[in-house]
Amino acid sequence: MSVTNMPVSPQVLGPCGDDDCGIRELLDRIGDRWTVLVLVELSKGVRRFRELERAIPGISQRMLTLTTKRLCRDGLVERNAYPTIPPQVDYRLTEMGRSLAQTIVTLADWSREHKGAIGEARQRWDAEHPEM
Amino acid sequence: MSVTNMPVSPQVLGPCGDDDCGIRELLDRIGDRWTVLVLVELSKGVRRFRELERAIPGISQRMLTLTTKRLCRDGLVERNAYPTIPPQVDYRLTEMGRSLAQTIVTLADWSREHKGAIGEARQRWDAEHPEM
Repeated sequence: MSVTNMPVSPQVLGPCGDDDCGIRELLDRIGDRWTVLVLVELSKGVRRFRELERAIPGISQRMLTLTTKRLCRDGLVERNAYPTIPPQVDYRLTEMGRSLAQTIVTLADWSREHKGAIGEARQRWDAEHPEM
Repeated sequence: MSVTNMPVSPQVLGPCGDDDCGIRELLDRIGDRWTVLVLVELSKGVRRFRELERAIPGISQRMLTLTTKRLCRDGLVERNAYPTIPPQVDYRLTEMGRSLAQTIVTLADWSREHKGAIGEARQRWDAEHPEM
């Protein structure tokens, strides 16, 4: 049975406008790209603050601090501080964070695999709807 | 091998700040909740415009029109108009749209399943960090 023919999980067959369907909760969780990028970077292994900063071009120190703090608060990331001089801090995914990162990677794979097909669909659509 | 112990797909092991890792493309695609809610609603079957509107509380006619148009342009949704009086229009997922909806549902399931655990993690964190 291919993915496209699989029945969609019955758990989401209820009304989707309310909070119970998980979608709003999901977007609250991963709706911003910094959160997603930090999760994916940490899925590769333990990272120090500076390593995260370098791996995610464009993120500010302030935004990275906020993002890691929120992920720690949610129980998705674990922060460890070592009493060295200078003090060192590193971050790693918890088991729950790892399972979320895995599902995000699946979606990212989908995006990458279908990037070309979506681009072609847009070209076709634009050619057929020159007025829009 | 449990999901949490699975190695993360090697396809994302490159630098994630650039566009190639798929994450930015992904968030451009599903970063807004209306797009996600329309995809999930259509994963249940063919829907007319009014049916979509009723199924997604809070969406305006204008936003629903914009969202369905963008999904059609991306090749994820197919729009069919019937020359009845009054004219009828319905929407259904394409095969590509169905495969995206399936992966989104997996993520939504994750969110729902871990809602309680995240809530508990937050309570623990807040108790341990009263200053924040």
